[in-house]
Amino acid sequence: MDSKEFREAAISSIDQIVKYYDTIEERKVVSDVEPGYLRKLLPDHAPEDGEAWSDIQKDVEDKIVPGLTHWQSPNFLAWFPSSSSFPAMLGEMYSTAFTGAAFNWICSPAVTELETIVMDWLAKAFALPDCYMSTGPTHGGGVIHGTASEAIATVLVAARDKYLREATKGLTGEEQEDAMAERRGKLVALGSAATHSATKKAAMIAGVRFRTISVHAKDGYRLTGESLRATIQALWAKGLEPFFLTATLGTTDTCSIDDFDSITEVLSEPAPAGHGEIWVHVDAAYAGVALVCPEYQHLTKQLSKFHSFNTNLHKWLLTNFDCSCLWVRDRAWLIEALSVNLAILQNSYTSSGLVTDYRDWQIPFGRRFRSLKVWFVIRSYGIKGLQAHIRKHVGLGEKFAELMKTRSDLFEIVTGPRFALTVFKLKGHDSAAITIDEQNALTKKYYDTVIADGKIFLSSTVVGSAFALRHCPRHSLCRGGARQEALRNPGGKC
Amino acid sequence: MDSKEFREAAISSIDQIVKYYDTIEERKVVSDVEPGYLRKLLPDHAPEDGEAWSDIQKDVEDKIVPGLTHWQSPNFLAWFPSSSSFPAMLGEMYSTAFTGAAFNWICSPAVTELETIVMDWLAKAFALPDCYMSTGPTHGGGVIHGTASEAIATVLVAARDKYLREATKGLTGEEQEDAMAERRGKLVALGSAATHSATKKAAMIAGVRFRTISVHAKDGYRLTGESLRATIQALWAKGLEPFFLTATLGTTDTCSIDDFDSITEVLSEPAPAGHGEIWVHVDAAYAGVALVCPEYQHLTKQLSKFHSFNTNLHKWLLTNFDCSCLWVRDRAWLIEALSVNLAILQNSYTSSGLVTDYRDWQIPFGRRFRSLKVWFVIRSYGIKGLQAHIRKHVGLGEKFAELMKTRSDLFEIVTGPRFALTVFKLKGHDSAAITIDEQNALTKKYYDTVIADGKIFLSSTVVGSAFALRHCPRHSLCRGGARQEALRNPGGKC
Repeated sequence: MDSKEFREAAISSIDQIVKYYDTIEERKVVSDVEPGYLRKLLPDHAPEDGEAWSDIQKDVEDKIVPGLTHWQSPNFLAWFPSSSSFPAMLGEMYSTAFTGAAFNWICSPAVTELETIVMDWLAKAFALPDCYMSTGPTHGGGVIHGTASEAIATVLVAARDKYLREATKGLTGEEQEDAMAERRGKLVALGSAATHSATKKAAMIAGVRFRTISVHAKDGYRLTGESLRATIQALWAKGLEPFFLTATLGTTDTCSIDDFDSITEVLSEPAPAGHGEIWVHVDAAYAGVALVCPEYQHLTKQLSKFHSFNTNLHKWLLTNFDCSCLWVRDRAWLIEALSVNLAILQNSYTSSGLVTDYRDWQIPFGRRFRSLKVWFVIRSYGIKGLQAHIRKHVGLGEKFAELMKTRSDLFEIVTGPRFALTVFKLKGHDSAAITIDEQNALTKKYYDTVIADGKIFLSSTVVGSAFALRHCPRHSLCRGGARQEALRNPGGKC
Repeated sequence: MDSKEFREAAISSIDQIVKYYDTIEERKVVSDVEPGYLRKLLPDHAPEDGEAWSDIQKDVEDKIVPGLTHWQSPNFLAWFPSSSSFPAMLGEMYSTAFTGAAFNWICSPAVTELETIVMDWLAKAFALPDCYMSTGPTHGGGVIHGTASEAIATVLVAARDKYLREATKGLTGEEQEDAMAERRGKLVALGSAATHSATKKAAMIAGVRFRTISVHAKDGYRLTGESLRATIQALWAKGLEPFFLTATLGTTDTCSIDDFDSITEVLSEPAPAGHGEIWVHVDAAYAGVALVCPEYQHLTKQLSKFHSFNTNLHKWLLTNFDCSCLWVRDRAWLIEALSVNLAILQNSYTSSGLVTDYRDWQIPFGRRFRSLKVWFVIRSYGIKGLQAHIRKHVGLGEKFAELMKTRSDLFEIVTGPRFALTVFKLKGHDSAAITIDEQNALTKKYYDTVIADGKIFLSSTVVGSAFALRHCPRHSLCRGGARQEALRNPGGKC
């Protein structure tokens, strides 16, 4: 394929993509293929000779699209959104074309520098405290990871090593290594029962224990300082050492917000001698981007006392997957845990200390040019456009909850709407007499019917002991016409 | 931006990308911007209002491109290549458009199934033993990670947990947790002095010790069974437990191949009572893709005795970053270390056990649709085209080494050409009398001159105690005209 053929193939692909988006609503939102469908359609080995592009492209529509679940469909109401926007797609086109491993500054200065700049832009737009800015007083800063799970694994490792360094201060060499190994065996990472499994997985990766702190319906499924204190004290009593907590802004099940005030309070209480500080990471994977709206910015009040914060632009902020933004209060914590030098990487820029080598802020060695799509998205929509997008969804969530309330004979709202997410269950004809098991069975039966019908796609969850359904609305901007214009001009009709 | 505006913007971007590739040779290969260049060119906060695409696109050429180092330039001879091809770019376009988090099968069956199929295609094409096939006798299989560092961190964690599970067999609950914590503190991961730093970093992430095994010029900088045995025995004598080894096929410095035969032999020797098996991972990040050519396939002989293998298509096999292929002999090893269940992910397909949920084979939770670009690349070039591409580079490396030899008064080849990589140093006028320090200074001075001149970009390394330069040739396929045709028809002139 030469550059002329590529141009033709690319235009034809763009046309297919535009058509896909323009007709997405007509497609069944969840793929209905059977497991193993594709193996039956493809040869069992790679072709010896090259094939024509037209044959390959035909197979995209015929063999791949039927196996897609259409995340950009307005009928996809499951989990959280996985945003798409045209400016982000353009960003990925350039990023792919400029491909390189970008593991240090000189690999492509623009890759590093644009990332620092857009992460500072976002920190300001989200009203994060100054300490998370690259130019801030504590030498913090932001880095783009692929997913929140990577971000959480990274900060958990950094927290573990910070704790162990401080706990073994004064020791060196193998003596320190032995002391760290012994101490590491006592470390416990914490999350609430509503914390995303990414924290437990991060603890498994880092080789430390993990404990779950209960949450309760009476607190709206928020983690409270009181529960945290009880768990910490029980661990201390066993000779174990809690060193890390994920607090959540917008939990996966119900979008609850942990009680940052009481958590801060508990963590400022004195610990037994020899115990170190507990690193608090705030996982705001979905809801964090709502901080672009001033009406949510009071939620950042305690962040300066915490250690790190992540939110995924690829969930709700119009940036195609993957794009998880992580900020830390002191970047040295990451670098001390993750930096390894290699002779072939020596270069005068890194040695000068004037540049950032983001590979030391993450698990992977090489990096994609993800900041380009972020830059395109922010500039295309502007802060006002991004705010309008969030508020549009919040409004749709409120509308849905209002509609539910008009049929309170059928439905019971468990939580929400919170950040557009409503969690609900079915009531049953005699709601006073129904047992929780019967209600769960009823809700499950309704859910199975909706899924089998295939017109919309919801996800289910378990809240307390209740089986419940989650409704999280979508409003795609990748369409023809007036809707985008309205976003650029949020005063207009949308 | 509506779909009509997107179409126009995308075509204009494709034109800019084609022009970029067609003129890449005319650009200075390494960016010559100063640290901090971009901050001076951009506002210090995000715009309030959306901007026109034409303004954004203009900034790509004016502000971003000057900050790029051109990895696809034929003058970029540093590190290893970071491949680009037009079919891979098309794959990324569709992947971005079909965006979704794809953390389980029902998220988009095609994302999972195409990955399994192309990984089986590649396993066959690389002549990997059957045990690495998804359909093989040991329930192995392949998964696409972003980078080799993620792949290595993942298998190191899996190896650690496999070792600890076997070492604490019979125990359960907190008793097992305590036993694992104690035992974890004794574990040691191994790599040679020529192993990529990714293994040391993986050990840091997993919270285990790391030890380096020496390599020697007399062995061509290969890790030998003899050195491995000495290290293992020294660790045992200290009460430590080696559990993991990265063996390399194509080391970063010199592309040496560790001595798989003698490593296999040493690892089959009896260990002291209570010590478990050592997991051997083969890191073939760069050179592994050469296995597509039958002349290298004898190198896979011992792989069935090892545990896992990775190679990066994004280095040398025409697949834009990122795309690191990892195979394991038994996929349960990954799943047991990395699987965490979450209520909102429950679905009948996962419960049935008939589908693969690749999130349990990796650190990140969500996943990109990377197999699409792999499928496009394999089908566009065919196995013969991929072989021609590898052989073209190997031939260029041989040609370079021949040219070096014609000036043996100036240059001394340290290693190679191996898989197209030649490592060399300068000789000095009186090569008999020159000290190693003088020779290093001379080579360094020459290197600095080449880098300052900016016509070509080389990387340096330290081999033994010698400062040396690495030359790894590039032959781009992203150009106009006849070169691509030659690849499709490898009998023709290229």
